[in-house]
Amino acid sequence: MGDKNRIYKPKPISGYAEWLPEHRMVEMEWMDKIRNVFETYGFCNIETPSVEELDVLLAKGETDKEIYTLTRLQADEDDDKDARLGLHFDLTVPFARYTAQHFNDLVFPFKRYQIQRSWRGERPQKGRYREFYQCDIDVINIDALPLHFDAEIPAIMYAAYQALDIPPVELRLSNRKILIGYLTALGVEDITTATRTLDKLDKIGADGVIKGLTEEAGLSEDIAQKSLALAEIKSEDTGFYDQVKSLGIQNDLLDEGLDELKFVVENLSHLPKGAIKVDLSIVRGFDYYTGTILEAYLKDTDYGAIGSGGRYDDLAGSYINKKLPGIGVSIGLTRLFSLLIEIGHFKEAERKSPADILMVLPDEAQRGVTLETANTLRARGYKVEMYHAASKLKKQLAYAEKKAIPFVWFPPFKDGKPHEVKDMNSGEQKNADPATWEI
Amino acid sequence: MGDKNRIYKPKPISGYAEWLPEHRMVEMEWMDKIRNVFETYGFCNIETPSVEELDVLLAKGETDKEIYTLTRLQADEDDDKDARLGLHFDLTVPFARYTAQHFNDLVFPFKRYQIQRSWRGERPQKGRYREFYQCDIDVINIDALPLHFDAEIPAIMYAAYQALDIPPVELRLSNRKILIGYLTALGVEDITTATRTLDKLDKIGADGVIKGLTEEAGLSEDIAQKSLALAEIKSEDTGFYDQVKSLGIQNDLLDEGLDELKFVVENLSHLPKGAIKVDLSIVRGFDYYTGTILEAYLKDTDYGAIGSGGRYDDLAGSYINKKLPGIGVSIGLTRLFSLLIEIGHFKEAERKSPADILMVLPDEAQRGVTLETANTLRARGYKVEMYHAASKLKKQLAYAEKKAIPFVWFPPFKDGKPHEVKDMNSGEQKNADPATWEI
Repeated sequence: MGDKNRIYKPKPISGYAEWLPEHRMVEMEWMDKIRNVFETYGFCNIETPSVEELDVLLAKGETDKEIYTLTRLQADEDDDKDARLGLHFDLTVPFARYTAQHFNDLVFPFKRYQIQRSWRGERPQKGRYREFYQCDIDVINIDALPLHFDAEIPAIMYAAYQALDIPPVELRLSNRKILIGYLTALGVEDITTATRTLDKLDKIGADGVIKGLTEEAGLSEDIAQKSLALAEIKSEDTGFYDQVKSLGIQNDLLDEGLDELKFVVENLSHLPKGAIKVDLSIVRGFDYYTGTILEAYLKDTDYGAIGSGGRYDDLAGSYINKKLPGIGVSIGLTRLFSLLIEIGHFKEAERKSPADILMVLPDEAQRGVTLETANTLRARGYKVEMYHAASKLKKQLAYAEKKAIPFVWFPPFKDGKPHEVKDMNSGEQKNADPATWEI
Repeated sequence: MGDKNRIYKPKPISGYAEWLPEHRMVEMEWMDKIRNVFETYGFCNIETPSVEELDVLLAKGETDKEIYTLTRLQADEDDDKDARLGLHFDLTVPFARYTAQHFNDLVFPFKRYQIQRSWRGERPQKGRYREFYQCDIDVINIDALPLHFDAEIPAIMYAAYQALDIPPVELRLSNRKILIGYLTALGVEDITTATRTLDKLDKIGADGVIKGLTEEAGLSEDIAQKSLALAEIKSEDTGFYDQVKSLGIQNDLLDEGLDELKFVVENLSHLPKGAIKVDLSIVRGFDYYTGTILEAYLKDTDYGAIGSGGRYDDLAGSYINKKLPGIGVSIGLTRLFSLLIEIGHFKEAERKSPADILMVLPDEAQRGVTLETANTLRARGYKVEMYHAASKLKKQLAYAEKKAIPFVWFPPFKDGKPHEVKDMNSGEQKNADPATWEI
């Protein structure tokens, strides 16, 4: 205002996370650990483009996710020939498309993990970004996919969470066939509205659910209560099975779902106590799920899901008219990471450099020997940052301190003098030989 | 046509690369190696969002790069309030913006590397993608940035190329001040057109350059010849210096450029012979470069540049009205990788799984001990894929072979029998203990 020299001052873009180096360092460690867990189970990595054709993104009617489309700023008449492209909103649809497209070049069961960003143009809010990392692990097979994978995949997901320094995690499990079979047996017609209402049980409570079921889904009070009775069932083991049976509803799909969920829970019995919980109110927003569904939560917090997944028997195959059932999960990395930043979980995160050693430049005349010393240590596997100018020692030490680099190396300020190295944590300083020194 | 059951068959999107698992595995190894080199020099990693505000992207007049803008598919009136966003076309502009925006939270000189995708809506052609990975390493300082970095950064870039299994690389160096100072001294008015023409020397030859300079840049035949004489200068050492001096043109900017380039070449003398070449025809397309410029090439090939970079003294500071000079380079990872795939460089790439071991499931009754064996080996650091069904041994072995998994483990088919492991390369099979076995 009145300042004619006003310059364009950059500011954060709402919904797009950007971390300082010290937090990015932790995020990279997380990604390395998750990747290592996924590879320990023999899953290969793939990446897909950031974009898919809109036909692919919308094939399963995912219209409730906000898709970003691309336009060239300098678009011309040629663009009419271009397919309409949108940024993917998850990694499951691109993976299913990839599997169908490269069908002849893949070995089945095709087991892959994928760590990439996704985009959704939703209104940003706490823990919800418009651009975010997901770490997905899935398997797709031809014709039939053994139910064992419905247990193995959540177990791998749990191992990945355990590899991170985070509060305890709980996996909540269900199977879509249970709720759908049960509601069908009750004669519920608008199953979509009913399941969406039941899914909110944790948020709106039993009274809210009954209100929603009667007023929005058009259920009678009696049917609404019966629906609620199922959704309220929780168990840490296979106890849910008898609880559902005792409700006295008979339906083939329901039975199939109960048997599947029981099998999955039994095959997860090697996980620590409290790692899993059956929760029959879970629905999941994506239409492509057909069986096992799960959500991951930080225990004893009111944060939303930090991961989710499930079985999708009809997604990949739909592109090429084959049966290609799949199951997979997605760790919401950006969401989880940003929540932990917000609660100050990483207060110890202070390293602003991967360097083990700051190499002091004692004098411009010593630049040669300083560079040589740095390279000797680098060849021995150390990460060495060289200070760029022969500034006062105090200034160079302050730089190492600000970046929390653990060791400072002093090459000889004159030929013939010894090298010295300072441990910045203990303050101890002693002579050292770059060819033999060990951290 | 006439087929009413026609389904949507996915196909590649022009300009968007997607690799099979065996090639993605090599690409990941490349990224790990490049990251390791960058960190060995103490550079930290950052990532920036895929998008920037258009004001940021267009701040330096980069209108010749094709920018993609984003639109929400279900846009509403709220969108008017949103800033217009575009996908970044390189990593230098986002890094400069990041440095300016987080100025108070960074330690200077701020040294960072960044491995991310960029997007340009250009017409796809051999080695040119619309979405591509770049591996950038840069440093930005306050007020002044020592010229030593103009040598250190190319040396790190060279070390990164050397870490990859690729044909020999050559860095071609120049300094913008040389060509601009020289042309200014010659009285050339349309310097932009003249430098763009000279930049094409390798492609269109001396006659083509003279034609372009006289017909498009409006130079006289004499001035055109003099301009060409400078651009034709090449040397593997500081020999260029006397060659330029012998052309008899005096200009302060030219002298500054010559001194800087001489300093840089001298400070790169530790690189292997043939690693660098001064080439005064180099210009680089980006307007933000102000001094040192360089391009990387695969030697003895006619491929385009596989990397490039330079000094930009006025980019980052422009956002916050400070002096923030920088220098950096970018390795064109996708371009280099795709070229090598095309020439069959990775013909040995056959591993479709990171697994060291395929764990055979001998019998459904043995699933427990099989899983336990796999977990024992995983805890010892091995990557173990478990076969999902108790299929015939022949089938399980064929699976390991197809995925090129080097070892196959046979848990006891009955309790009390020994474990056996087969080396798939040698064919040798012997007894083994999961608690002590070593590859």
